Amino acid sequence: MALAEPLTLYAAKVCPFAHRVELALAESGLKKDKDFTRYEIDLQNKPEWYEPKVNAAGKVPAIAYGGPKVPGDQPSPDSTKLTESLVLIEFVADLVPNSSLLPSSPVLRAKTRFFIDAFSTQFMPPSFAFISGKGPSDGLLNAIEQLQNLMAPSGFVIGDGKEFTTADAAIIPFFARMEVGLKNDSGGFEEGEGTKAWEALMTEGRFARWRKYWADVKARESFKDTFDEVKYCFEIYLNPRVNHSSS
Amino acid sequence: MALAEPLTLYAAKVCPFAHRVELALAESGLKKDKDFTRYEIDLQNKPEWYEPKVNAAGKVPAIAYGGPKVPGDQPSPDSTKLTESLVLIEFVADLVPNSSLLPSSPVLRAKTRFFIDAFSTQFMPPSFAFISGKGPSDGLLNAIEQLQNLMAPSGFVIGDGKEFTTADAAIIPFFARMEVGLKNDSGGFEEGEGTKAWEALMTEGRFARWRKYWADVKARESFKDTFDEVKYCFEIYLNPRVNHSSS
Repeated sequence: MALAEPLTLYAAKVCPFAHRVELALAESGLKKDKDFTRYEIDLQNKPEWYEPKVNAAGKVPAIAYGGPKVPGDQPSPDSTKLTESLVLIEFVADLVPNSSLLPSSPVLRAKTRFFIDAFSTQFMPPSFAFISGKGPSDGLLNAIEQLQNLMAPSGFVIGDGKEFTTADAAIIPFFARMEVGLKNDSGGFEEGEGTKAWEALMTEGRFARWRKYWADVKARESFKDTFDEVKYCFEIYLNPRVNHSSS
Repeated sequence: MALAEPLTLYAAKVCPFAHRVELALAESGLKKDKDFTRYEIDLQNKPEWYEPKVNAAGKVPAIAYGGPKVPGDQPSPDSTKLTESLVLIEFVADLVPNSSLLPSSPVLRAKTRFFIDAFSTQFMPPSFAFISGKGPSDGLLNAIEQLQNLMAPSGFVIGDGKEFTTADAAIIPFFARMEVGLKNDSGGFEEGEGTKAWEALMTEGRFARWRKYWADVKARESFKDTFDEVKYCFEIYLNPRVNHSSS
């Protein structure tokens, strides 16, 4: 389907919050360059027009919607600027209501939003703590074990697991960056702790559901099209303390 | 309209998070006792069945939806139990899609959700800090001044201000309790600081938009029907350090 108005996504390959919106767009059925424009923002060297014309907070992701069709680096004052990754993935779902991004059942929609809330409050703090060397790997590992209890027995997160929803879009970017950090033992933790945690995730029985989920995700076109592991690694290794300036 | 399935809201008059859902239900057009049941949970003396049968986290609000029609104190294992106040007000909006709770325009829906996010991140922390004696009144006052910039020029929060949305449901309960605390100079702040802050809100020109909003809200039936100031005051004065056990 085509959108009623022009849409430009301002994103950065390194940023998990922006990646959420890229995934939602990729799974919505909208086509990049045809139905919407993606514009990469270099967070280390932001264009001077970005804060005054798109997002005063200087963060990605942001969406400009409506107004005239313009190049990404010439945002129009007549478009509406929207921010906050969780707001934006619901916005994409609302723009394309016949996509799978939000189930039609009110109960399943509530479960989708509850899952995202659980991820934000129960997985993100202990995982950031471990990655930054301020908490134990058990915090991250236990959070993944607990999240499995809220997931469909197979497939995607919500309902019968057959449909990719905003719950999947919200969590996948963080697992992708977690894999890179742990496998490469790159983080604030003690040497060897990252690879040890990854080994646990890859072998222990208690993570079987998550492991299958992650294999399914990595085989999915929307993931392969939106996660650039090489570019991500390049940026974190050059700038290990990069502030993603994102939300 | 009637709901397809029985709905029971578990709430507590003292709790602002539960109040959000009461407001959403009151504004949805659904009728208490006819279309849904409200069950008061005494947070200081929770019924023994509440955690095992409704919400293992022991918090309000919670909604039981579906299954057989049962009394509130005999929840059925066949109903779906949903929690988290922001999830629940969107659930009510989804159950009654012809209500005003969520605008039909995707852009206005995004602005509704963005406003709630701004309230959660920019108003709640400094206001809790002041009320608990851990921050200055300026934190709370400046946050209200800033929120005004995101509000419609008159009426309710979103769009042209003509419709009550989930953004109003999400914020009103906190302003109601703020008024009681400040007017009665009841909080962790130094004596006189509460009444002084309330005086500022009631008289200074920079709060004119908020002041009109708050007068409109207090005149609204849904507010009068759902906020029991006497009961709220009674509970906070008896239990000034009550843990609301809510989210």
